[in-house]
Amino acid sequence: MPTENRQIRLEVDELPKQWYNIIPDLPEPLPPPQDPETGPSRVEQLPNLLIRTCLGQEMSTDRWIDIPDGLRELYLQAGRPRPLFRARGLEKALGTPARMYYKSEFYSPTGSHKVNTALAQAYYAREDGYERLATETGAGQWGTALSYAASLVGLKCTVYWVRAVYRWKASRLNFMKMFGAEVHASPSDKTDCGRELYDKDQNHPGSLGIAISEGLEDAQRDPKAAYCLGSVLNHVLLHQTVIGLETQKQFEKADDYPDLVISCLGGGSNFGGFALPFVGDVLTKGKKTKFIAAQSDAAPNLQGEYRYDHADHAEITPLLKMYTLGHQTSLVPIKGDGLRYHGCSPIISLLRHLGYIDTIAYPSDEKHVFQRALMFLRTEGFLPAPESAYSIACAIDEALKCKEEGVEKVIAFNVSGHGFMDMEGYTEVLGLE
Amino acid sequence: MPTENRQIRLEVDELPKQWYNIIPDLPEPLPPPQDPETGPSRVEQLPNLLIRTCLGQEMSTDRWIDIPDGLRELYLQAGRPRPLFRARGLEKALGTPARMYYKSEFYSPTGSHKVNTALAQAYYAREDGYERLATETGAGQWGTALSYAASLVGLKCTVYWVRAVYRWKASRLNFMKMFGAEVHASPSDKTDCGRELYDKDQNHPGSLGIAISEGLEDAQRDPKAAYCLGSVLNHVLLHQTVIGLETQKQFEKADDYPDLVISCLGGGSNFGGFALPFVGDVLTKGKKTKFIAAQSDAAPNLQGEYRYDHADHAEITPLLKMYTLGHQTSLVPIKGDGLRYHGCSPIISLLRHLGYIDTIAYPSDEKHVFQRALMFLRTEGFLPAPESAYSIACAIDEALKCKEEGVEKVIAFNVSGHGFMDMEGYTEVLGLE
Repeated sequence: MPTENRQIRLEVDELPKQWYNIIPDLPEPLPPPQDPETGPSRVEQLPNLLIRTCLGQEMSTDRWIDIPDGLRELYLQAGRPRPLFRARGLEKALGTPARMYYKSEFYSPTGSHKVNTALAQAYYAREDGYERLATETGAGQWGTALSYAASLVGLKCTVYWVRAVYRWKASRLNFMKMFGAEVHASPSDKTDCGRELYDKDQNHPGSLGIAISEGLEDAQRDPKAAYCLGSVLNHVLLHQTVIGLETQKQFEKADDYPDLVISCLGGGSNFGGFALPFVGDVLTKGKKTKFIAAQSDAAPNLQGEYRYDHADHAEITPLLKMYTLGHQTSLVPIKGDGLRYHGCSPIISLLRHLGYIDTIAYPSDEKHVFQRALMFLRTEGFLPAPESAYSIACAIDEALKCKEEGVEKVIAFNVSGHGFMDMEGYTEVLGLE
Repeated sequence: MPTENRQIRLEVDELPKQWYNIIPDLPEPLPPPQDPETGPSRVEQLPNLLIRTCLGQEMSTDRWIDIPDGLRELYLQAGRPRPLFRARGLEKALGTPARMYYKSEFYSPTGSHKVNTALAQAYYAREDGYERLATETGAGQWGTALSYAASLVGLKCTVYWVRAVYRWKASRLNFMKMFGAEVHASPSDKTDCGRELYDKDQNHPGSLGIAISEGLEDAQRDPKAAYCLGSVLNHVLLHQTVIGLETQKQFEKADDYPDLVISCLGGGSNFGGFALPFVGDVLTKGKKTKFIAAQSDAAPNLQGEYRYDHADHAEITPLLKMYTLGHQTSLVPIKGDGLRYHGCSPIISLLRHLGYIDTIAYPSDEKHVFQRALMFLRTEGFLPAPESAYSIACAIDEALKCKEEGVEKVIAFNVSGHGFMDMEGYTEVLGLE
């Protein structure tokens, strides 16, 4: 009998001891990174860019990878394991026969799931003797998470932040500064690739691709700095599987199992971290679970082309085989800015290509998803991040289908972050003032 | 052996089933509310103002009072029980021999411990057939918590918000509106007592005392509305004991016990909720724990006079025996606005009077407490509410004394809320921009 409890929790010692690496379980080999036809080799540059252990994890074919004890301590300090909630209030309001469960990544100290890989990367970087971390950020969640992780392990941190967002998120900017991070609006005059754009237009709005290029260039030039990426790459998704692994244990405790696993998707780390352990069950245990990635019409990358493309604007990264809208395509700003990225992680892209993952893209005016978030807030009481609103909207839409069809599905969705620092976005889209 | 774990948690079924009422354990009877020498009886009005069950709890001499099952469900939905953290990062940074533990009320869905009584009051109000809740708010935390609780149980909510704060906390205002609450800047033209001040000055900054008067008058005139108070009263502290009761169980699990219990104090609900179960151990079990209430120089009410005074500006409430600065005294604004109140709850006041509780008041420029909050953020990773920064500052100051004196004390402190919606305050005081 499935639990009637509103909250399913884990003990401290039930925090996973290993991450799940799906690569050996994939039905086809994952296409490796490649070099473009012209220019210097990007693939050969990877060891100079990525943290050694992370690069090893990127290529690993081990199914289970140990989480070091020191890092598990940091996960505990960050409040993990996080509760799984049964959405009794929401179910009742919808009148759905579906059982709805959501994972509470919104309990993150910085506001999103990004801390799970930020802590891992900072931990390994310190182990390798680096003194500084360099990165980019779009919505600001990743930059905050890395600033936090750097502060906790005692490293410096430099963040290149897409100017269009940097300008209006004063709270998040100051939050990063409180952690001691150095934050530059991107394109900046701190790097060659940034300066080229900055000199032409000091108000250049920037893009995630440009900011990635700046972070990469910064780290490339300083041997004491490591570059950290917050999504897309295999090792980032690996670190995030702690979310799905906890959720699996919680479903066991709840004596239930999801028919449908839903989360929002930008680059793929939150979706992958939540869904991959369940995809593993489909691939190796014959489970029939379905997966839906909730996206924005502003960046429906899973509806793009499946081909090799760069992960950044300035073509510093190798080519990755992925669903992409093109690495220099400009994308209209949205409030759920963490979803605004041209490409999807190679692992998720392959799974999508093989038919394991469905997708939906919501209108970029965001009215529908924010109304759904409001319904969630009023019945469950938690204020989701704008990105998480997509996950919620999709879960509610599916629960309403269950109602229409009289089907008793089990729906699991991830609320990847909180929206306490995103009230301007809600206010504007919902027309509160 | 005390635990080395960074986090001590409770199972869902370890959520307390009863609150602790300290009244029967007090060394002296608690002085009852009284009427002033002139005017109508306020004491006789109480049954028309307060929710029946809450009024019963206000006067109860039962040591243990059951938490109804339906309310325990709501506590679970709000994420209770909340972790107790061992501050290993902070201890290391300070180099203190003290063991420091903090309770994570910052995991509250609305941002503070206030949800614990908001849910209780909303639950009982619905049970009594009320359709609307009316209240006041100062810093905004209580108004948000009640808006949240009303939304979850399906009641309407009206909030009178001190205009001086209302004006600059747009995020918090819109958060309340998202829950469906009606929010008025106070003094407003919606009540007689408000209108009198509003008509003279439409920009009147207001005060918590005035806002309380407006909430009371509103509820007094509408039989379908119940008035709810967020602090000071006995039943509010009773509901908040869920914090300290959880913490006691967590100390048992940690195989440790606090020598020093610290929290910030405005009206007394957070301090009381955290400390009273431990005070009970002193009164009935011979424990030697010391208690410190951290306050602001802007409102050091525990250094005021111990006498009968009104809880509100317009003298609608009965007289309460409390430490007070005078109910019409004006207090300078601070960022930790939840600490800016003229009087302290009768229970805490009596304990203070009898020498059980020490107090410290920090300078009202808040530089010291915010610097301490920054140290906490950078070592523990959590962003505290400005009010909670006082609790943290006191805990750090005491841990440093332990270092000087080479004493291995156990310090427990409550981080009553998060600061995600208070970045303007931090930015200004820390001079981040």
